[in-house]
Amino acid sequence: MTQDFGFTLHNSDGMARRGTVHTGRGDIQTPAFMPVGTVGTVKGLYLDQVKDAGADIILGNTYHLMLRPGAERMDRLGGLHKFIGWDGPILTDSGGFQVMSLSALRKISEEGVTFKSHVDGKLFEMSPERSIEIQGLLGSDIQMQLDECVALPADHDTMKSAMELSLRWAERCKTAFGNQPGKAMFGIVQGGDNVGLREQSAQALVDMDLKGYSIGGLAVGEPQEVMLAMLDVVCPILPTTKPRYLMGVGTPQDLLRSVAHGVDMFDCVMPTRSGRHGLAFTTRGRVNLKNARHAEDTRPLDEGVNCTASNSYSRAYLHHLIRSNEMLGMMLLSWHNIAYYQHLMAGIRDAISNNNFAQFAEETEARWAAGDIDAL
Amino acid sequence: MTQDFGFTLHNSDGMARRGTVHTGRGDIQTPAFMPVGTVGTVKGLYLDQVKDAGADIILGNTYHLMLRPGAERMDRLGGLHKFIGWDGPILTDSGGFQVMSLSALRKISEEGVTFKSHVDGKLFEMSPERSIEIQGLLGSDIQMQLDECVALPADHDTMKSAMELSLRWAERCKTAFGNQPGKAMFGIVQGGDNVGLREQSAQALVDMDLKGYSIGGLAVGEPQEVMLAMLDVVCPILPTTKPRYLMGVGTPQDLLRSVAHGVDMFDCVMPTRSGRHGLAFTTRGRVNLKNARHAEDTRPLDEGVNCTASNSYSRAYLHHLIRSNEMLGMMLLSWHNIAYYQHLMAGIRDAISNNNFAQFAEETEARWAAGDIDAL
Repeated sequence: MTQDFGFTLHNSDGMARRGTVHTGRGDIQTPAFMPVGTVGTVKGLYLDQVKDAGADIILGNTYHLMLRPGAERMDRLGGLHKFIGWDGPILTDSGGFQVMSLSALRKISEEGVTFKSHVDGKLFEMSPERSIEIQGLLGSDIQMQLDECVALPADHDTMKSAMELSLRWAERCKTAFGNQPGKAMFGIVQGGDNVGLREQSAQALVDMDLKGYSIGGLAVGEPQEVMLAMLDVVCPILPTTKPRYLMGVGTPQDLLRSVAHGVDMFDCVMPTRSGRHGLAFTTRGRVNLKNARHAEDTRPLDEGVNCTASNSYSRAYLHHLIRSNEMLGMMLLSWHNIAYYQHLMAGIRDAISNNNFAQFAEETEARWAAGDIDAL
Repeated sequence: MTQDFGFTLHNSDGMARRGTVHTGRGDIQTPAFMPVGTVGTVKGLYLDQVKDAGADIILGNTYHLMLRPGAERMDRLGGLHKFIGWDGPILTDSGGFQVMSLSALRKISEEGVTFKSHVDGKLFEMSPERSIEIQGLLGSDIQMQLDECVALPADHDTMKSAMELSLRWAERCKTAFGNQPGKAMFGIVQGGDNVGLREQSAQALVDMDLKGYSIGGLAVGEPQEVMLAMLDVVCPILPTTKPRYLMGVGTPQDLLRSVAHGVDMFDCVMPTRSGRHGLAFTTRGRVNLKNARHAEDTRPLDEGVNCTASNSYSRAYLHHLIRSNEMLGMMLLSWHNIAYYQHLMAGIRDAISNNNFAQFAEETEARWAAGDIDAL
């Protein structure tokens, strides 16, 4: 470990923040988008491509990895970094969110969650302590507390009790995590779309003096303006000296606007999942490569992005590959999308450094709205 | 075009031949294995990986490409080479074999074949002349005559009439192809597993003085010894001054043994198809990465192959990716297999050059038979 975990705020431009998260495995320039490597691979990409695109950190999913290959096995294999061949920082979620969304027969109690694996039906128990233990066995640099996340809309009592349980679990996770040089455990702000609950959750977590703060339970079905309104409630409560991570978000526009509301870190499967289905995010908005207009278009997908997938393959070829359901089509569009997300974040970081984030955001949104280049 | 099509025989070692096929788009060192890029992509690989593995030439499938994106469209797009980004030679089949195996409602007459597309049900007619026209529109460097290929076992009359029809189509294809500097049209020896029919087919094609000779209708269900016996019938009839291509073959052992019987060129989907299903061909024989013995094996798949996929990822990770049905697992094993096939062909070429092919073949087969490294 070369350095302890920490956060340096370089500049603020409105609510937007330009910073660096320091970890024992290297720095993360923020605002940052973290590509998702669910089961230990960013789907369809070589990790060299992920790194070259500009990603400082990737994410692994505790739920998937605890089921396969398994936490103790991963530890015996030397940890996730060695297993997948990534020497930069890795963030893991707690497993809780995917227990809720993917497993069968889940049961939540004060003690933790019980669930059946979607892989083989095996029964698992996961307490807050076990979640932290698993994340430790994986070798995660930035770990998440176990929390309970509810889908929106939800009634007040459901949101309140989930938020309160999450706070009690945050305390237990903090104790379980202890002090690990170079690493961090983040608390997760819950409270659904309720201002009071969000305030209460954020304040209680701040009082625990954690190393970073995640904002969970958003982008779970609510309109974007509700998400941004919740950020306006939560971010002013969070300390400026700690990183803020909006979990599971989102579209390029979600990222741009959330940065404007004070968020530092993001993750989402959208660039790779959309890429596998032929949808590209570009400097000129969304482009659906399945569309027949691309069939004889020899121009590259997006010359504005410095990535081989973006500027060295014709739209006609990408169209053909996607229509033919070929792996290479999914590989190229996933690669382009990851590169575009990193391109966007680099632009955001530069703009904040130069105190012209508002103008950058306006121009970026205008370019998206203007749409794709005219058909040939 | 820098040079005309031709073949230089550098050395013979028994029946095994070390040569170079010259084309307008570059040389092909033989014996050569040609990775299959069915619809314009070697499945799961970047073409840089294919080239770096040592492939001089790849194959495209006329049937697939005429259906999607279509021959005239491909021509408008500048041809297959430009479309996919491969500047070396490309060989195309005639489309006939896959009309038989993939399309519905096929009908064969003296004139040609009529069939319904497996993509959209559209009706197509393909004469020998149209097959050559399509291959020209694709921009193929080594084109195949349209032929009729029968599955084995088959009765004598079926094999005979298919062989005779194929000969008449060879004449028509030769005329349609004409003289194209730097390019070639190969005739295809048919005749099933019948010695007399094979002799008759080979001799008639030799009399047409074509630029190269394919051997079709093998590896279609018959035992390997039948295939090798047919090679022993056909190869001595074929001129030593022309390349010989055994279509759709095969396993590494098929290749090694067929070289010993006088074959120069091969193609097969096996390395990529097997790779997608977790099966690796290695210097120590077949390795099934799905097998639980690899789950905690941190050793690389095959240190004997100079390829990142072979020597820089653990078996445990490959096992995990394949078990998890992840694209990266398919990508890595397809890549390794293509690299292993090229590694094998390079070894074969060196051995023939050094007049020790028999010893090389014996040692290679012995290593395969000895099997994989012991489990940890």
